[in-house]
Amino acid sequence: MKNYLQPVSLDHAYLLFNLGATSLVSASHQADEDVMPATWVCPLDLKPSKVTAVIDRTHYTRGLIEKSGYFALMLPGKGIIDQVMYLGTTSKNDEINKLEKSGSEFFYFPGFDIPMVCGCAAYAIFKVIPEEHNEKTYDLFIGECVGAWSDCRVCRNGHWSFDQENDSLRLLHYSAGGHFYTLGDSISPKKI
Amino acid sequence: MKNYLQPVSLDHAYLLFNLGATSLVSASHQADEDVMPATWVCPLDLKPSKVTAVIDRTHYTRGLIEKSGYFALMLPGKGIIDQVMYLGTTSKNDEINKLEKSGSEFFYFPGFDIPMVCGCAAYAIFKVIPEEHNEKTYDLFIGECVGAWSDCRVCRNGHWSFDQENDSLRLLHYSAGGHFYTLGDSISPKKI
Repeated sequence: MKNYLQPVSLDHAYLLFNLGATSLVSASHQADEDVMPATWVCPLDLKPSKVTAVIDRTHYTRGLIEKSGYFALMLPGKGIIDQVMYLGTTSKNDEINKLEKSGSEFFYFPGFDIPMVCGCAAYAIFKVIPEEHNEKTYDLFIGECVGAWSDCRVCRNGHWSFDQENDSLRLLHYSAGGHFYTLGDSISPKKI
Repeated sequence: MKNYLQPVSLDHAYLLFNLGATSLVSASHQADEDVMPATWVCPLDLKPSKVTAVIDRTHYTRGLIEKSGYFALMLPGKGIIDQVMYLGTTSKNDEINKLEKSGSEFFYFPGFDIPMVCGCAAYAIFKVIPEEHNEKTYDLFIGECVGAWSDCRVCRNGHWSFDQENDSLRLLHYSAGGHFYTLGDSISPKKI
């Protein structure tokens, strides 16, 4: 696979999450790793980019985030929707070989041991800013970006541009009951 | 205008925000009111529905939220993109007649004095759950839903269904630099 991934500056990484697409969240601790979808992810700050992510305490991934202090967010393209669904409907609490059975291909960025799923339009790694009250009361985690990358065919330094040729990388937006929407066309107001 | 708005149950209101669309946020205090776009809005909890919303301290709307303890979120359709842009590029700090000059039409739900903008696909009102640390440190507000409604032509009790006939209500997703995307087509994985 040709490597289309290019770095995104830490001050632009929040732009990856402006569109409100469904993400995959991953984490690892001492070679134990997991990946799950997370729809409730949102930018929080610009410089450096921060996000909020709601990660329920029942998820295996949450323990790995708490132990390691890091998590990654990825924005899956529609081409891997079946993998996203598997990763969201199978828990590593029940299936220890979840990742091997997901059908996903994984890779790692240099210097980070967090698994990344091939077929995503963008990737970002966050260091948890400890906020015990938010985590315990709301399952709400705050992360500060320490690394970000995007597939230059659809996104350059946080600025998106989709076309028909790279339709498999078009973002997914989770609705309910296993149904998603894809992102549509660009549109601009008369006065910008 | 025929009234297509139907109530959404408080336990389903979070579904309105799953898709990650750009919202309008409004608030009022003693007849002073304002409306602005807010992209950094996200579901936080299910029953009853809660959301997070990042509202910078420079915005006029923020003071109204802090004084009243309530805010509304609306999901504007692409048909009012020019109004959304005006409401986001004009501050009531500079233009006291912002709302009158916006070109928007407004209405109110019975029992609430918060202005609502015509042309949105869904509406929800939230009571602020006071979290001083989050508000001061991150400009992050948490709200619990006290009322929600959607346009039944595109959304029934939190379940979305867009068609060509009601294209003007298709949701907007803010990217950067005044550019938006519209929501595209529905897509489902092989196994739900």
